[in-house]
Amino acid sequence: MHMHPLIALFTDFGTRDAYVAQMKGAILTICPHAQLVDLNHEVGQFDVRGAAYVLAASAAFFPAQTIVVAVVDPGVGSERRPVMLQTASDKWFVGPDNGLFTHVMEREGVRRAAVLDRPAYYRAADLSATFHGRDIFGPIAAHLAAGIDPEQLGSMTSELFVTLPRRQPRQVGQALMGEVQHIDHYGNVVTNLTPGLLDAWPKPAASVHRTKIYCVHRSETHAVQWVNTYAEGEPGALLGLLNSERFFEFAMARGSAKVFLDAAVGDAIELWPSKDEKPSIA
Amino acid sequence: MHMHPLIALFTDFGTRDAYVAQMKGAILTICPHAQLVDLNHEVGQFDVRGAAYVLAASAAFFPAQTIVVAVVDPGVGSERRPVMLQTASDKWFVGPDNGLFTHVMEREGVRRAAVLDRPAYYRAADLSATFHGRDIFGPIAAHLAAGIDPEQLGSMTSELFVTLPRRQPRQVGQALMGEVQHIDHYGNVVTNLTPGLLDAWPKPAASVHRTKIYCVHRSETHAVQWVNTYAEGEPGALLGLLNSERFFEFAMARGSAKVFLDAAVGDAIELWPSKDEKPSIA
Amino acid sequence: MHMHPLIALFTDFGTRDAYVAQMKGAILTICPHAQLVDLNHEVGQFDVRGAAYVLAASAAFFPAQTIVVAVVDPGVGSERRPVMLQTASDKWFVGPDNGLFTHVMEREGVRRAAVLDRPAYYRAADLSATFHGRDIFGPIAAHLAAGIDPEQLGSMTSELFVTLPRRQPRQVGQALMGEVQHIDHYGNVVTNLTPGLLDAWPKPAASVHRTKIYCVHRSETHAVQWVNTYAEGEPGALLGLLNSERFFEFAMARGSAKVFLDAAVGDAIELWPSKDEKPSIA
Repeated sequence: MHMHPLIALFTDFGTRDAYVAQMKGAILTICPHAQLVDLNHEVGQFDVRGAAYVLAASAAFFPAQTIVVAVVDPGVGSERRPVMLQTASDKWFVGPDNGLFTHVMEREGVRRAAVLDRPAYYRAADLSATFHGRDIFGPIAAHLAAGIDPEQLGSMTSELFVTLPRRQPRQVGQALMGEVQHIDHYGNVVTNLTPGLLDAWPKPAASVHRTKIYCVHRSETHAVQWVNTYAEGEPGALLGLLNSERFFEFAMARGSAKVFLDAAVGDAIELWPSKDEKPSIA
Repeated sequence: MHMHPLIALFTDFGTRDAYVAQMKGAILTICPHAQLVDLNHEVGQFDVRGAAYVLAASAAFFPAQTIVVAVVDPGVGSERRPVMLQTASDKWFVGPDNGLFTHVMEREGVRRAAVLDRPAYYRAADLSATFHGRDIFGPIAAHLAAGIDPEQLGSMTSELFVTLPRRQPRQVGQALMGEVQHIDHYGNVVTNLTPGLLDAWPKPAASVHRTKIYCVHRSETHAVQWVNTYAEGEPGALLGLLNSERFFEFAMARGSAKVFLDAAVGDAIELWPSKDEKPSIA
Repeated sequence: MHMHPLIALFTDFGTRDAYVAQMKGAILTICPHAQLVDLNHEVGQFDVRGAAYVLAASAAFFPAQTIVVAVVDPGVGSERRPVMLQTASDKWFVGPDNGLFTHVMEREGVRRAAVLDRPAYYRAADLSATFHGRDIFGPIAAHLAAGIDPEQLGSMTSELFVTLPRRQPRQVGQALMGEVQHIDHYGNVVTNLTPGLLDAWPKPAASVHRTKIYCVHRSETHAVQWVNTYAEGEPGALLGLLNSERFFEFAMARGSAKVFLDAAVGDAIELWPSKDEKPSIA
C-alpha cells in the first residue's frame, strides 16, 4: 500500500452532526497516515437509488487502490450484510449490501467480494447497533489502508451482492424511452439514455446538434434544443446534451431544467424526433 | 509531534464564505505539513450550546495528540478569553472560553489549561478584532502542531473554564425527566437520558425491547416503540432507542421524529412505563 | 515543489453531486501525493461576481506555491479561454478567463499568465465539453503540483485576463458612496468602502467608534452604531465595523443585517455623518 493510502468518504450523514467526524476519527485512530478525501455527505438521506448513481460517477475518476467507504444505510442493524468489494479496476468499496454498489459493479466490474464477518477488525469498544459507518465500515477501510490482507478482514464470497432493479432505456418505434436517474444541484436533469441509443435513433436532421427535438414528460411535450455545451443555449430554452458522464441530460442556460420540467428521479421520459410523430403513439 | 500532525476544524462558519478557507490558509502558512480534517462548519450559527454537544461527540473518536480548533464565538472581541486545553486523553482544544468545551471537559477530563495571551504566536500581520479563528486559534494550533512547547503558547492556568448550565436528567416517581439536547439532520431527537437511568427505571415488561413506552412532550402523550435499531421500526411509528452516543433518542423509520414531535433543543421530555401511570402526575 | 504540494479547490459545484469528487479523483490520478484542501464549493452557482470576491479573500491567507483550482464557469464550452496565472506572491490559479480572477489579480498582482492550449496535459480520455474542472483545470493543477514546468502547460501570454467592471467607492460631499459586494452566511453585509475612504471622511465626533452614523439604502435611512467588534453591539442595533477583510460591513449582534436591510449584492449604499446632512442631497 501507499505511504499515504487514499480513503474516500461517501455518505448521507450531512455536515451538521458528529457522524462524519466520528467516522474520520475512527479511521485515523487505526491508520493515522491515511489521506482522507470527502466525496459526498449530502446525497439524499436514505436514498440508496440516487446515491448508487452518484457513487459510481464519483469513484470512476479515482486511481487504482483508492478505498471508498460508502454508507447510505437505512437498514443499519437489520439483516443486510456489511460487505467489501474489489473492482476489476483495483479500487475497494466498503459498505452495506443494499444495492448501493449496483452502478459501481456494473461500471467497474468485480474482482473479489467479501462479507465483513470478523468483529476483530471492527472498532474495538462499544459497538453501536445504529452506526456501522463509524464502527465497522470505517475501521475495515482503515485496516485495509494500513496493509492488512483483505482476505483477513472478511470471508470471501462468490455470492452476488444486491443490485437495484432498473428499467432499461430503449427505442420503441420513433421514440426513445428512458427515465430520470439523477438531478444535480444546478437543476440539470440526467436521464439514463446513452450515446449508443442516441446514435441508433433516427435523427431529425443531418446535423444532430443545434437541432430541435421533442420530449414528453408527464403528458406534456416540450421542444428541446440539442446542443454540445450549456453555453450554446439561449436563455430560457430547454436544452438537451450529453453530460460529462455521457448520459443525455436536460439543462437550461443559467436556469433550472428541474424546475422548468417539474422533474423528479424515476420520472419516465420520451424523446421524439419531431412534433408530428409524437401524437401517433403518445 | 507526528510527521503529519492532525488538526481538526470545528466551526459555525458555514461553507459559502471565505472564513473556513482563511483559517486553513493561516494554519498551513505556519505548519505546511499539518493534515487538516474538517469536522464541522455547519453547526447552528452562534449556537454554543448545540455546538458543545456535537463537538464532544465529534472529537471523542479521534486519536491522542489530535489538535482541535473549535470556533463558535458570538462574543469574539469581547472579554471572553482565548484558551487552549489538553484533555486527560491527550487531545488538544483551542478556542474561545465561552462554554463550548463544557461537554469535552466532562467527557475527556482536563490535564492542562492555558490562556492564549502571547500575541507573538498570533497571526503575524493585520490582526482583526472580529476573526480570532483565523488570527489567533488557527495560528496557535499550527504552532502547537509544528512542535512549539505548549507552555510557550500561553499562560498555564488552574482556573476553570466556563461551563454551560445544564439540567440533570433524573427519575421522579415512575417518570424519567430529561430534555432534548440535539436534533440531527435525519430528524432524530437526542435526549440527555443515559443507559444508567434507563437501567434503574421500572421497566414495563420483562424484555424492554420492542416494548411500548410513553413519552410526554409539550403536554402530548405519544406511544413509543422501544427498539435496538432504526430498521426494527414499523414505518410511521415513533421509535425510542439508545443512539450511537449512548443517549436515549427518538427516531422514525425513514421519517423525522423532529417533525412528528415538533421538537426543539431544550424541550423537556418525560418517559412513562405505561399510559395509566401517566395521568397521575402529568 | 513540496513533498506534499497544496492544491486548494474553489468551485460552485455544490456538495450533493459527483462533480467535486470527480475533480479530486482526476487530480489524485495525476498527482497522488497532492494535499487537497477544500476552500469552497457553495458559492452561488454561476455567480462569477460574488465568487471573485470570496476567492480572493480565501486565497489571500495561503502560503506561496499554493495552487488554486477555481471553477465558477457558466460559459464552459464557449469561447472563454482556460487560463493559469502566477501571482506576484507566487501562488498559482487555474480556471476560466471570465472575470473570476478580477480581485485576485488586483490584490496579489500578476507575475506570469498562460492560456491552457496544450491538450496533452488535459485529462487523458473522454474529454467532456461541459466539465473543464475535471478534464482541464484539475489535471493542469495536478501536473503543476507534480513538478511539470509551467511553461510546458500552456502558452505564456502578456494579454490581460478578463476583469469584471466595478463601481469605485468614493466621497461625494459629506457622503461616502459605495455598494454591497458580498453578504456572508451570518447575514453580514460587506460594502466596498475601505479604511482609506473612512479615514479621510469628516467624522461625526472626536472618537469615531461607538458613534452613530447614518446609512441610506433603498431610500431608507438607518442609524448605525459604529463599533470595533460584533460583541460591542446592543442586540437589535444595526452595527457598522471594519470586517476581517478591512472593508466596512453592516452587522447585527446575533441577528442578520441582510434581513434587517433587505440587502442584496450590488445595492448602492451611502454613509452620512449625521441625520441633518442627509436630506440635502438624498
